[in-house]
Amino acid sequence: MQAKSLKELAEHVGGEVLGDGDMLINGVSTLERAVAGEISFFCNKKYEPLLKSTRAGAVITAEPVKTKAALLIAEDPYYAFMQIVVLLHGHRKHKKVGVSELASVAKTAKLGSGCNIYDFSVISEGVRLGRHCRIYPGAFIGSGVKMGDDCIVYANAVIYDGCEIGSRVIIHANAVVGEDGYGFATHNGEHHKIPQIGKVILEDDVEIGACCTIERATLDDTVIGKGTKVGDMVAIGHGAKIGRYCLLVPQVGIAGSATLGHHCVLGGQVGVVGHIKIGDMVTIGAQAGVINDVPDGATVIGAPAIDADKGKRAYALIEYLPQMRKRIRELEKRLAEPDKTGEKL
Amino acid sequence: MQAKSLKELAEHVGGEVLGDGDMLINGVSTLERAVAGEISFFCNKKYEPLLKSTRAGAVITAEPVKTKAALLIAEDPYYAFMQIVVLLHGHRKHKKVGVSELASVAKTAKLGSGCNIYDFSVISEGVRLGRHCRIYPGAFIGSGVKMGDDCIVYANAVIYDGCEIGSRVIIHANAVVGEDGYGFATHNGEHHKIPQIGKVILEDDVEIGACCTIERATLDDTVIGKGTKVGDMVAIGHGAKIGRYCLLVPQVGIAGSATLGHHCVLGGQVGVVGHIKIGDMVTIGAQAGVINDVPDGATVIGAPAIDADKGKRAYALIEYLPQMRKRIRELEKRLAEPDKTGEKL
Amino acid sequence: MQAKSLKELAEHVGGEVLGDGDMLINGVSTLERAVAGEISFFCNKKYEPLLKSTRAGAVITAEPVKTKAALLIAEDPYYAFMQIVVLLHGHRKHKKVGVSELASVAKTAKLGSGCNIYDFSVISEGVRLGRHCRIYPGAFIGSGVKMGDDCIVYANAVIYDGCEIGSRVIIHANAVVGEDGYGFATHNGEHHKIPQIGKVILEDDVEIGACCTIERATLDDTVIGKGTKVGDMVAIGHGAKIGRYCLLVPQVGIAGSATLGHHCVLGGQVGVVGHIKIGDMVTIGAQAGVINDVPDGATVIGAPAIDADKGKRAYALIEYLPQMRKRIRELEKRLAEPDKTGEKL
Repeated sequence: MQAKSLKELAEHVGGEVLGDGDMLINGVSTLERAVAGEISFFCNKKYEPLLKSTRAGAVITAEPVKTKAALLIAEDPYYAFMQIVVLLHGHRKHKKVGVSELASVAKTAKLGSGCNIYDFSVISEGVRLGRHCRIYPGAFIGSGVKMGDDCIVYANAVIYDGCEIGSRVIIHANAVVGEDGYGFATHNGEHHKIPQIGKVILEDDVEIGACCTIERATLDDTVIGKGTKVGDMVAIGHGAKIGRYCLLVPQVGIAGSATLGHHCVLGGQVGVVGHIKIGDMVTIGAQAGVINDVPDGATVIGAPAIDADKGKRAYALIEYLPQMRKRIRELEKRLAEPDKTGEKL
Repeated sequence: MQAKSLKELAEHVGGEVLGDGDMLINGVSTLERAVAGEISFFCNKKYEPLLKSTRAGAVITAEPVKTKAALLIAEDPYYAFMQIVVLLHGHRKHKKVGVSELASVAKTAKLGSGCNIYDFSVISEGVRLGRHCRIYPGAFIGSGVKMGDDCIVYANAVIYDGCEIGSRVIIHANAVVGEDGYGFATHNGEHHKIPQIGKVILEDDVEIGACCTIERATLDDTVIGKGTKVGDMVAIGHGAKIGRYCLLVPQVGIAGSATLGHHCVLGGQVGVVGHIKIGDMVTIGAQAGVINDVPDGATVIGAPAIDADKGKRAYALIEYLPQMRKRIRELEKRLAEPDKTGEKL
Repeated sequence: MQAKSLKELAEHVGGEVLGDGDMLINGVSTLERAVAGEISFFCNKKYEPLLKSTRAGAVITAEPVKTKAALLIAEDPYYAFMQIVVLLHGHRKHKKVGVSELASVAKTAKLGSGCNIYDFSVISEGVRLGRHCRIYPGAFIGSGVKMGDDCIVYANAVIYDGCEIGSRVIIHANAVVGEDGYGFATHNGEHHKIPQIGKVILEDDVEIGACCTIERATLDDTVIGKGTKVGDMVAIGHGAKIGRYCLLVPQVGIAGSATLGHHCVLGGQVGVVGHIKIGDMVTIGAQAGVINDVPDGATVIGAPAIDADKGKRAYALIEYLPQMRKRIRELEKRLAEPDKTGEKL
């Protein structure tokens, strides 16, 4: 890591300096922890009080704010911040080992140039990896899996046979891709396993969080679209189709054969039932239970999920149910005694 | 895979052909993706429009439907479909390796005939495996585990010491069976770990999804009954007893010491609190929170979970709470102004 | 295991015997399964009927109860029970292997005395382990990880680079500590990965359940405080701070940058949104969705989470919404027909 001047950083992100552009910046930190020589950022108004107390040398922000630090004004400050973290710190470095002698690589597997295959990982029969893939210790790549370039499969992640992985895909530790879909035919009270002959397709630039489970399907493919980022512990059912550039945060569950459009954002612990269609650019609030189709651009919350504007008021009123019931009772009492009421008034 | 005539398939499943029984079928596919020479199935009315457009050679169905395809009429079409997928495609084939030289098998472990023990798996002291078990790479079988015949333990799954696994059990990748139950005695503000000396018992024909966690208990056993199928990422607490032939779909959580009867069906993300009793043949809707005993045969939904008939109407009304409050206010206003109201009427 | 007299057990826990103090006790069991020579315990009134039928030789209890068994009266019977289970059964024994020849230990790693490093585990560059750590098969310890004394990392658990683990920490199978936080900067519709240069700190005496995922953060640290016990399948977001001696039971989700005080208790499947502050000694009911700060000592339930006293009545009333709506309608009808009503009365 080499220090850069604030001016250089501003040029790098297409921003503007307010203050000492020659100040040397050698790292990025939070408003709370930054010290001189470090740059921080301000995007969430909740942290406004920290602008006064921060000891950061500079702060990335969308517009001028009151602080002792120099400012780097950027149109999209969070994006500028990302670019600067990449510039100053970079992404994780992976040790170069080539193919470890402690790995198990099938003779029929084909590896692109520059791959790193770490200890105790398994590359099965007929696998094809692109260039510069990194397969961490204990990861299991099932037979016939195809993978593009520059992928990272972290420790102990498992990809079942026949799945197709694009380029620049990241799969975190202990995630599972392509396990059998939950498919059983119940007959005379017994559940009979249906062979799951579909596969999972992860398109380019997908990231899969730790301990995720992405089911294959009986016949169809399960697809996660280009650039979609899946948080930890997300369960995706057999044959689901997730569009491009979606954000699925941790603990989301998508049941089988559901489809999501592009640029959807799903909050934590959301559940989507099977066989429904979520449109494009849909936002679903945390813990929502989606049981019906959702049109393009909608925002829904709650379980059962309803339009967010309606839902915010509606779910907030649950708290007042005892009061509402009391008021209904009082109304009933008054109407039940019309004469008395009349006399008293 | 060898092609079969539609007539042969019908005989195999005890069904009847409407159309060309000599048509050769070489695979199974969805209504949407099937091509000539493939058979599909029709069970969900939602997909009725696809009957018109499908290019499948034949369709399995319960009764005659309008489509260009030949029909295979079967009493239980989904079961017939399963039988045909098994016949034409079969279940996953597992490479025959015997005991890999890269596996770690304790000298005191006993393996039945025909087991396949793959690279980097660990079979600990005193383990007993039945015949034809397949232990995938990286799987860990703890000391003293007993396992029946024809089990499959997929990559990196972990079975802690002393657990008992029946025959034909399937455990998917990264699942954990028999980790310590969540048992602590809190004293003077500190939580003291209680040794968990119970074990987990998985009966015959159980399937455990990827990334499941099945806790052992302090003293008692945690039991999953014969033929029960557990989806991905299901958490089962210490000492829970799950009956036979239940279906627990992904992300369900069952707290410690809860008991479920046989043939229960639990939807996604359902939570069941500890120490309660769910009867036989109970259905629990997705995301429900069950906090009380549930009688045999009941269907419950919602959080807190209530009878489904009641619950469907009740939870659907949350949306109308703002309107209900408004109507109560209006009633109160009218009653608060009895004279005026009287005059106006 | 050596049998102890009931009197010895009572002395060990500072309790008192009612009955035959010379009775030899050789094990601990449940009221239901205990036989002569075994001790059981009674803490949950739900199990009172079992006091009559139990065949246990002795029962630990807070005050005299009716049963044929001898009694061990202890002020905190569950704590006494824990002490006796430890005395008679002990914690799990770990095989002594030193550093297995089948493990991969980097030359630059430093291991304290008495460590057991099992087959196929990976200890990366620059790792420092304290004394008596046990690293189970397939576990991955990333580069630069620091760990105190007496830790246990179970099979296939993964600790990413640079994390700091205290002493006496237990990490269960397939848990993941320190994977990349869910941090992306969205620009022109694409999500750009932000390097996650923070780390995860697990303080002394923390226990992490199977298949947990504890994210590292972009800049800040994710911290789990001393003595906190985390159940299976809990997801903790980037930069969250969990206080000391908390109990997080299975399937809880804590979003990024949330903070919890000390001695909080979170029920199953609870969700806590990001950037909020939960005070000390807060109790959160199962499946609650916490979206606002919670003050010290509060108990909240429901989604959205509200004060428990209020919430218990409020959420229980959802069931009566159809009835409430009907009553409002009837009130409206009566007020809409004042003359008629008048005549009738």
